[in-house]
Amino acid sequence: MKRAIVLVSGGLDSATTLAIARDEGFECIAVSFDYGQRHRVELQCAAKVAQACGAIEHRAMQIDAAALHGSALTGCGDVPLDRSDAQIGEGIPDTYVPARNLVFLSLALAVAETTGASAIFIGANAVDYSGYPDCRGVFLESFGRTANLATKVGVEGDGIEIRSPLLEWTKAQIIRRGLDLGVDFGLTSSCYDPGDDGTPCGRCDSCHIRQAGFAAAEAEDPLP
Amino acid sequence: MKRAIVLVSGGLDSATTLAIARDEGFECIAVSFDYGQRHRVELQCAAKVAQACGAIEHRAMQIDAAALHGSALTGCGDVPLDRSDAQIGEGIPDTYVPARNLVFLSLALAVAETTGASAIFIGANAVDYSGYPDCRGVFLESFGRTANLATKVGVEGDGIEIRSPLLEWTKAQIIRRGLDLGVDFGLTSSCYDPGDDGTPCGRCDSCHIRQAGFAAAEAEDPLP
Repeated sequence: MKRAIVLVSGGLDSATTLAIARDEGFECIAVSFDYGQRHRVELQCAAKVAQACGAIEHRAMQIDAAALHGSALTGCGDVPLDRSDAQIGEGIPDTYVPARNLVFLSLALAVAETTGASAIFIGANAVDYSGYPDCRGVFLESFGRTANLATKVGVEGDGIEIRSPLLEWTKAQIIRRGLDLGVDFGLTSSCYDPGDDGTPCGRCDSCHIRQAGFAAAEAEDPLP
Repeated sequence: MKRAIVLVSGGLDSATTLAIARDEGFECIAVSFDYGQRHRVELQCAAKVAQACGAIEHRAMQIDAAALHGSALTGCGDVPLDRSDAQIGEGIPDTYVPARNLVFLSLALAVAETTGASAIFIGANAVDYSGYPDCRGVFLESFGRTANLATKVGVEGDGIEIRSPLLEWTKAQIIRRGLDLGVDFGLTSSCYDPGDDGTPCGRCDSCHIRQAGFAAAEAEDPLP
């Protein structure tokens, strides 16, 4: 059976991505990263999502927190709250984490090569996104080329494909596709700065984008 | 002062690379990686090399050992010994570590961005090397493009340059340049499977390449 590594953050995009990979017939290994993020509750959500969406395994990998320091998401300054749509669309925000998706994808690539996976799925999205450079198609395509130059499977084998099925979708489309595939969004977490019990703040960019997405999808968010 | 991140493994190539970066006037942060390698003595060597060659800081970063599993260097099978030059030149050996340089460079990139470095130096070498795909210029150039698409410094700033000054040098040239710059090769370690006290085995590919390099440079290796 064809196998894929799926980056699962615990959020709704990656939950839908995992469901899509499963729907395409991939046997999936879900991979999450503990990088000292403020919103660590997402790691518990990731484990639940991985199981609920039928991953054969969930790996939570540790990343040296010092590497990804320097972001509001890793304890450097405050998470911006109550920003307008216009503000969210403006440039790269303080929640940008240096080289995050490159580090995540590189580690996922190592896991892919050692486990014989032929694809890596990432729930990157360039529409309702937060201005992160590493969520753009041009980055993901470049990473795919680099990945196949860096590895034995790329040079001597069949190569590894980088898949980002949500890249051009709106948040509403992602939510609708996830619901079609039976994803339980009640297991997910999107908030950048949730309470200790996981309750979303409702005010950060990510909460804002999620709320607007459910509204546009005419669906009800099972989270408070 | 311009600043660089230098990948320092504790071997002689990266020691020479650090000396070159210093000689070019860079303030250097040395970065090493603990990825469960069999030859962990190299991390102590890296710290000594970083200090002796004038790095302002040495960071030993932890990488989840499960990621880079599947190599003779990370406890999966034996390190091949007593191979001939022809055998060493043949394909990708068992000591290949999946996606290693891509993972290392990605983490170094995150450190570069958070510390304001404008360059990353890596002692990759495509001549007297061991057939690793991630030591080739074509990979490093591709990584450089990807890095500048992945990051804020690449998209909104002056970008980060990936430098591999040793890429086309023979091992003898590397040794001579290192000696010219005053590198103490007695602090370095090249062996893939050293004794507990760090004594090189003298039989793995890396020991073999080092011995041949010193012989060709007409220099004496300070190591036993």
